[in-house]
Amino acid sequence: MAKINEDLQRERDKCTFKIAELTTLIDGGRDRTDARREREKVLLSRTKDLHGVPEEYLSHKEKYESAIKNSVILFGIVRQMQEEGKTSVTDYRDVITSLLASAQTRDGSPMGVHYIMFMPAILNQGTEEQQAQWMPRAWNSSIIGTYAQTELGHGTFIRGLETTATYDPSTKEFVLNTPTLTSYKWWPGGLGHTVNYCIVVAQLYSKGQCHGIHSFILQVRDEETHAPLPGIKVGDIGAKLGLNSVDNGFLGLDNVRIPRNHMLMKHAQVLEDGTYVKSKNSKLNYGAMVFVRVVIVFDMVNYLSKASTIAVRYSAVRRQCHMKEGAPETQILDYLTQQHKVFISIATTHALRVTANKLWDTFNAVTEELGGGNLNRLPELHALACCLKAVSTADTANCVERCRLACGGHGYMQSSNLPLTYGLVTAACTYEGENTVLLLQTARFLVKTWQNVDTAKLTPTVEYLKITRSKGFIDKWQNSIECIIKGFQIVAMGKISSSVDHMQQRISNGMALEDAWNMTSVQLVSAAEAHCRVIIMSTFYEEINKAMATVSPELRKVLQKLVELYCVYWALEKVGDLLQYAPIAQSDIRDMKSWYEDILVELRPNAVALVDAFDIRDGILHSTLGAYDGRVYERLMEEALKSPLNGEPVNQSFHKYLKPFMQGKL
Amino acid sequence: MAKINEDLQRERDKCTFKIAELTTLIDGGRDRTDARREREKVLLSRTKDLHGVPEEYLSHKEKYESAIKNSVILFGIVRQMQEEGKTSVTDYRDVITSLLASAQTRDGSPMGVHYIMFMPAILNQGTEEQQAQWMPRAWNSSIIGTYAQTELGHGTFIRGLETTATYDPSTKEFVLNTPTLTSYKWWPGGLGHTVNYCIVVAQLYSKGQCHGIHSFILQVRDEETHAPLPGIKVGDIGAKLGLNSVDNGFLGLDNVRIPRNHMLMKHAQVLEDGTYVKSKNSKLNYGAMVFVRVVIVFDMVNYLSKASTIAVRYSAVRRQCHMKEGAPETQILDYLTQQHKVFISIATTHALRVTANKLWDTFNAVTEELGGGNLNRLPELHALACCLKAVSTADTANCVERCRLACGGHGYMQSSNLPLTYGLVTAACTYEGENTVLLLQTARFLVKTWQNVDTAKLTPTVEYLKITRSKGFIDKWQNSIECIIKGFQIVAMGKISSSVDHMQQRISNGMALEDAWNMTSVQLVSAAEAHCRVIIMSTFYEEINKAMATVSPELRKVLQKLVELYCVYWALEKVGDLLQYAPIAQSDIRDMKSWYEDILVELRPNAVALVDAFDIRDGILHSTLGAYDGRVYERLMEEALKSPLNGEPVNQSFHKYLKPFMQGKL
Ligand SMILES: Cc1cc2nc3c(=O)[nH]c(=O)nc-3n(C[C@H](O)[C@H](O)[C@H](O)COP(=O)(O)OP(=O)(O)OC[C@H]3O[C@@H](n4cnc5c(N)ncnc54)[C@H](O)[C@@H]3O)c2cc1C
Ligand SMILES: Cc1cc2nc3c(=O)[nH]c(=O)nc-3n(C[C@H](O)[C@H](O)[C@H](O)COP(=O)(O)OP(=O)(O)OC[C@H]3O[C@@H](n4cnc5c(N)ncnc54)[C@H](O)[C@@H]3O)c2cc1C
Repeated sequence: MAKINEDLQRERDKCTFKIAELTTLIDGGRDRTDARREREKVLLSRTKDLHGVPEEYLSHKEKYESAIKNSVILFGIVRQMQEEGKTSVTDYRDVITSLLASAQTRDGSPMGVHYIMFMPAILNQGTEEQQAQWMPRAWNSSIIGTYAQTELGHGTFIRGLETTATYDPSTKEFVLNTPTLTSYKWWPGGLGHTVNYCIVVAQLYSKGQCHGIHSFILQVRDEETHAPLPGIKVGDIGAKLGLNSVDNGFLGLDNVRIPRNHMLMKHAQVLEDGTYVKSKNSKLNYGAMVFVRVVIVFDMVNYLSKASTIAVRYSAVRRQCHMKEGAPETQILDYLTQQHKVFISIATTHALRVTANKLWDTFNAVTEELGGGNLNRLPELHALACCLKAVSTADTANCVERCRLACGGHGYMQSSNLPLTYGLVTAACTYEGENTVLLLQTARFLVKTWQNVDTAKLTPTVEYLKITRSKGFIDKWQNSIECIIKGFQIVAMGKISSSVDHMQQRISNGMALEDAWNMTSVQLVSAAEAHCRVIIMSTFYEEINKAMATVSPELRKVLQKLVELYCVYWALEKVGDLLQYAPIAQSDIRDMKSWYEDILVELRPNAVALVDAFDIRDGILHSTLGAYDGRVYERLMEEALKSPLNGEPVNQSFHKYLKPFMQGKL
Repeated sequence: MAKINEDLQRERDKCTFKIAELTTLIDGGRDRTDARREREKVLLSRTKDLHGVPEEYLSHKEKYESAIKNSVILFGIVRQMQEEGKTSVTDYRDVITSLLASAQTRDGSPMGVHYIMFMPAILNQGTEEQQAQWMPRAWNSSIIGTYAQTELGHGTFIRGLETTATYDPSTKEFVLNTPTLTSYKWWPGGLGHTVNYCIVVAQLYSKGQCHGIHSFILQVRDEETHAPLPGIKVGDIGAKLGLNSVDNGFLGLDNVRIPRNHMLMKHAQVLEDGTYVKSKNSKLNYGAMVFVRVVIVFDMVNYLSKASTIAVRYSAVRRQCHMKEGAPETQILDYLTQQHKVFISIATTHALRVTANKLWDTFNAVTEELGGGNLNRLPELHALACCLKAVSTADTANCVERCRLACGGHGYMQSSNLPLTYGLVTAACTYEGENTVLLLQTARFLVKTWQNVDTAKLTPTVEYLKITRSKGFIDKWQNSIECIIKGFQIVAMGKISSSVDHMQQRISNGMALEDAWNMTSVQLVSAAEAHCRVIIMSTFYEEINKAMATVSPELRKVLQKLVELYCVYWALEKVGDLLQYAPIAQSDIRDMKSWYEDILVELRPNAVALVDAFDIRDGILHSTLGAYDGRVYERLMEEALKSPLNGEPVNQSFHKYLKPFMQGKL
């Protein structure tokens, strides 16, 4: 191994806690750390030297081809796990949503949706027979599928989908059609050239009646030749901001027939004669949506741990300007503005991880209750997953860009791996529910809750709405974490309450409910975000407090600071809200700014250790700026030399265009 | 021309002002509109059908080659202008920083820096003789150059550059060297494979003494063969987040000799015997920096006008969900949250344009004064250009992403042209002075000004610092534009003042000045931004008020609303600052929210007309979502079909990898 950059080494030498202890805490146990490292070692050894020219230099088509090559290696591991009997949802999550996956197919995998949506959809919506029919082949990748819901004309508004599935009792088949241009399926990952099956979401017609949207399993390509089946138009939707190694696809259907039992019938059914049997409960599908959204929050944690590792290590290596005349150049990590830019990403990574774990546990608990027929907590869970998905993706996107910009010019290089990371993260702000739309869904739940706050028994995540209203909830402001969390609870309550008032007033002035809702929607979105901030902050605080009991005093101090950083950062960001709703004074704010500055300075000596604890090996981090040894400039140059433009001293365009132009002949 | 989408047509029919009148106002006169349109027509006709596969599908190398092909066409126009005698700075700006340029080389031109920095540097730093020697060849592109300042190890800290130029009196030459890896030049646009000359910034050594950094003209490639000259290592730095058709390059120098008169000697000189003659004033270079930064603000205006055109037109065409059950699906432009996302971009485009024009005029005035030896206004102008560059690029980057996200999934398609636009805009947050560093420079000027506020005569842009301190500056808060601007002046003053206090207190507690500055730097950045917001807001308000006299009553109303939108939007964004420093009450804020909602609703009917007035033709806008006729879905499909992945029904990777994998043979 090459020599470690001296500045980085010094950072590691002076850190005040044991890095391995934090890594264990993050992984959730020593054995889990070991298992993860083992998986990483295996995979990375298999793929060593697989790559030729780095992907960023390839054409769109070549990127796809390279991703297929890499994906089959990655998913070979999933198959192997299955053969070893490791088929629990957690095992599965460990591979699919791990950093490992993001290393193997850096700009996304064409087969990702197979694991994250195709299989879960069959598990959730298929009958036991259907599961028995499809799952074994899906698990071992004999077939590869995607989830085709969105159309050119409709994404958010699922009820507006135009694809039709019309039951024909004479042949016991459904006839699938995309009758208009806007009804073409558009976006499903892997649909373009990879998958041979998909779940199609379509309007079900039987006996001349429309029964709304339902899911169907459709074969799109021949298993042997991979040629599109008759009546099927399928292809790549084209280049995107990111995820360019995923062939998001379009799909047009012209009288394509599938057998009756290809409709997923766990909840609703069409009988042989065409009789439609309704689902018992329309909310049952919430479960699947929640699952995917939790997975997304974990994804965000992964990406953000990468981005912060890169930015922090680079900031320790990069020296620029003299803070003091005559002194050596300053490590940019010593500038308070730089700490302000990057430390929040470390804290956010932990805050989101802790919250995602909690959400995951709640999800599993509720799923068990569902088995027993208890649907009570579904609406709360759904509202929670909506806002957490929205806020975690938005925050992560902001943090990643902040990290990238904090790396100055070199952050703009693809070889930093920050641009690609942003492309992946910002996509999550849109897919699986556009963020504004999701926040409005949470707002709807909050408004309903608020309107019954005096009479209903409140579920855990909204209990604070009642408590904050009691007199003296905050007697006197104190600059403490507890008080800040209380302050945010008051803010969330205040925003919900004043949105409702605002809406009521518009209604009293004669406005229709829907218009009043719309006119209040900017405020409602802000209320839902405030609610979500309460959840993240308080969960982070509580869970870290629980962990305190089991960790060393050294680590305890650092964790405490991370919680402080998160809370004080957001208190200052949202100081306008606190001033409006909580009893905070101008002098408190002045002191809070100093507090914030002090936290940054206190975290400074441990910054590199904190990101080292994320334990992301170079093969996964894939960054010239973030590698463990800090050989930043050497790596930048090594990567540059891989640019195919440097394969020849003079590019052909000189002779063809440039020279004639310069000589005035063009 | 194809049929116009009905929704768009309806928007145009119902607008309340004359679109052409606003276009004229934006261009600065009817004749300028005509001239611009003529230039666009000529260029677009020359390039019709030039493009084969859309650029986003090409490899890194092909992107570069395509950009060279397109650039020579674009810059043929510059040459033609020169031949026609149109060589004023304004003529020049019209082409180089126009939307036109961005249409021709969509992801940046390898020759951009030739026009924006190479030639201006010679004009600014070259003697008359040197100008006579180099400018004619540069103007007509017989030689193409770039500006090579940044090195692998140093960007912000120019004094830290490591490249050396050592004078050898025996041959009357300079010997250039990059003695370390970190001293390699890194980043200059076009340096990789395009240019044959460049300005190199290096530490000047003569008679064994270092005299700091100076600029030299260096030939890097042979004019006939384009081969790198002896001692020169040059190449492409590799793939980037954006600007991938520009070959940003690296440059290593090994004892490369250039004649003495290749040092640009307008300000400082090295005589034949090696005697160094110092520049009269170190601030003289500010002029060039200000020029480039003003050009950047104009760039931002262009990009933002594009992004808002795309987002607004698409929002008029896109229908999603029913606001009211039974009604037709809602144009998403009718959702208040959507208006909140996109209208601010329209207002910001105008605010920045008006401010950039003002800055441009000031720049020209000060340049004239410079001719007369008057340097008084340079520091102010420099501070102004720093913060305007920083705030305009940051705001534009945020607005462009906001516009993109507002287009939902389709905004993520390259064919929307929003991703590329973001890549260009966010680069400007870093180049020509990293934004944080620039804001700290403005802060330094503000702190100095503040420390002499009672005694010095204040220059125009900071006069408010004195006035705001007078008692009763705001007697009672009113929700009016005038009061909001005053409120922001108080905020800026308050932030500067409390930063200074904060710093003083740390110093009194025994901290060194530099450390106290650093500990206050987060607050200082925020103060500089607040100052800049005052400048933009008040300039926008004043200049639009001046324009009021000359425009029709219909247009007047709309312009008034745009100013309101800008001010109220920022008042609500910065409500925490207003609450801390200005006498605003909670009820004022409540009313202000309603005011904001009302402004959005009032602007709604004119939204499409407002972006139509930017008058960006389809060939320049280059967007499936934003085209004039609103054929969004047709265009998305047409573009998708151009993806080379769709050239064959089954991709080769199926046979190579996917099939063996699915059949368990891999
Ligand atoms: C990278 C990527 C991968 C994807 N993968 C898949 C996949 O595998 N399978 C699949 O089926 N789909 C997929 N999608 C599609 C994705 O699910 C949709 O893009 C997403 O649901 C957003 O819907 P939309 O595009 O219709 O946005 P729109 O709804 O058109 O959003 C546009 C704007 O309208 C606003 N808006 C819309 N409705 C309302 C409302 N009621 N109130 C207020 N504002 C509103 C939004 O806030 C937004 O600002 C993918 C998308 C992307 C970008
Ligand atoms: C697309 C692009 C094109 C370019 N084109 C050219 C070109 O044609 N010619 C050329 O010569 N150069 C060019 N550059 C280089 C560009 O000018 C530099 O990248 C820019 O000046 C920023 O410097 P840096 O990269 O050293 O950032 P750094 O200074 O390393 O910034 C990294 C971080 O350190 C912080 N920091 C640095 N100094 C301080 C300080 N004193 N106080 C507080 N914080 C500090 C910054 O705020 C930032 O967060 C280009 C860059 C890009 C991205």
